Amino acid sequence: MAQAIRRGDRRALAKAITLIESTRADHRLEADTLLDTLMPDTCQSLRIGISGVPGVGKSTFIETLGLHLIAQGHRIAVLAVDPSSTLSGGSILGDKTRMERLSVNNAAFIRPTPTSGTLGGVAEHTREALLLCEAAGFDVVIVETVGVGQSETAVAGMTDLFVLLQLPNAGDDLQAIKRGVMERADLVVINKADLDADAATRAMANISGVPVMPASALTGDGIAAVWAAVQAQAERRRADGTFDKRRRDQALAWMWDIIGARLTADFKRHPAVQSALPALQDDVIHARTAPTVAARSLLDLFEKS
Amino acid sequence: MAQAIRRGDRRALAKAITLIESTRADHRLEADTLLDTLMPDTCQSLRIGISGVPGVGKSTFIETLGLHLIAQGHRIAVLAVDPSSTLSGGSILGDKTRMERLSVNNAAFIRPTPTSGTLGGVAEHTREALLLCEAAGFDVVIVETVGVGQSETAVAGMTDLFVLLQLPNAGDDLQAIKRGVMERADLVVINKADLDADAATRAMANISGVPVMPASALTGDGIAAVWAAVQAQAERRRADGTFDKRRRDQALAWMWDIIGARLTADFKRHPAVQSALPALQDDVIHARTAPTVAARSLLDLFEKS
Repeated sequence: MAQAIRRGDRRALAKAITLIESTRADHRLEADTLLDTLMPDTCQSLRIGISGVPGVGKSTFIETLGLHLIAQGHRIAVLAVDPSSTLSGGSILGDKTRMERLSVNNAAFIRPTPTSGTLGGVAEHTREALLLCEAAGFDVVIVETVGVGQSETAVAGMTDLFVLLQLPNAGDDLQAIKRGVMERADLVVINKADLDADAATRAMANISGVPVMPASALTGDGIAAVWAAVQAQAERRRADGTFDKRRRDQALAWMWDIIGARLTADFKRHPAVQSALPALQDDVIHARTAPTVAARSLLDLFEKS
Repeated sequence: MAQAIRRGDRRALAKAITLIESTRADHRLEADTLLDTLMPDTCQSLRIGISGVPGVGKSTFIETLGLHLIAQGHRIAVLAVDPSSTLSGGSILGDKTRMERLSVNNAAFIRPTPTSGTLGGVAEHTREALLLCEAAGFDVVIVETVGVGQSETAVAGMTDLFVLLQLPNAGDDLQAIKRGVMERADLVVINKADLDADAATRAMANISGVPVMPASALTGDGIAAVWAAVQAQAERRRADGTFDKRRRDQALAWMWDIIGARLTADFKRHPAVQSALPALQDDVIHARTAPTVAARSLLDLFEKS
């Protein structure tokens, strides 16, 4: 399987991602062996996070950008972290017709990743899938997410650059979402700028502290400029060392995330903790016990038995 | 000691905070007992986080606001989360002359809290100190921090409202700091607005998605309006239930932070982990081992011995 992936076999890649998503212990062992074998072939891609609220045109943007990159000789993988899939059973990438032209292109690989509560949080499997895509020779990996909380943080934590798509005429009700995500953004793209050039200009003027540019995924205007800006930023960071530093920090943080999540999960499963937890949580919520005191009580129960 | 604190005795309060900051196990037990005794007297204050880069005028702002509130009959406690104190040995509140008029006022209590690596992270003791201040009858607790990373998150995680101070003429070099903090802000105050009214107006126009207002801590202009805005926002949240929900979420998150930090610390101290960690971390950093695989190796070592 490792060899087939190295050859860029998309079917083998898809199977491998299914393997890492499996909850069976023997699959997990196989997956670990596979990851270990392929590690020397990873890390060669540019990892780009793309986010934006529903309706901003993420699919069209990614398709247009992807086709632009393929025309330049790149191979593109698109992964999606989709918190809605655990809530509604739906998926932002479930609809295969969403990126019709990109999905049938041999230089592209598109895959949603479920976010059902795994140990490493919202996107453990996406990070592993990203490594597999790199081993399969995809030199640009796009990780897509919708503009809500935790998944943003997860995607920013696994990519080199984080691009936020905005609408030219987003109302104030979207500002709250925007604020939570804006701090992660390395680049803001006002998509659908062709719809209302004046609104796009106003939207751009409202954004400070981060590069912002207009584009239209539908007409293709600005897409080349967006890619140039992404590349320029990546080059600057490679030159000053922050690119590699970010990757190293991400890798270590990922490792500790998994360890911390597993330790906490084991803790919560401990019988003494399980029986004491509901009452103590209630005490904490109603300010009858200080959180520090409750924490120490639970830790004592955990350690003494 | 609990009784003296309930009476509002500032010396007893200062002693109690020293007690919770102690690393001695017997002190810790005493501190837990004290916190448990005082819990019914806590949670009655409005907790306000105040942040801003060095030079924005935080001390003067807090002093002016504090004196304004004392004149209205409030009692003010000021705590500071000071990440610089662990780095440089200095302290943002070390200089007692910083808030000269406030620090000699009987209705005020001012206390820096060290942030040396405790179990609950950057500000475990500040959160406990906050509860003690409430038990001592301080009905407005201000938690101050400088505008850098982790301490911001910690302060936003322990207060009801987070106020960010900005300069009217902050250059682009400050934008990076601003972006990281802006998402936490419930209110932005352009301080020193008297210095350059035009620049203040421009700075306000650049901020979207969060209420923004001008003030001058030096002249006192705008301070009453800031307080009115803080109260109005607090009232709205009390009315719609988000005020209490935030406090409940904060208390539980605090408990789990401490538990998670302790579990991870115990994990790192485990002999088998300690001996394997340096090589595995090095492998992760240099992408020779996937972080997931390294995490599972370490967890296996931890559980098997």
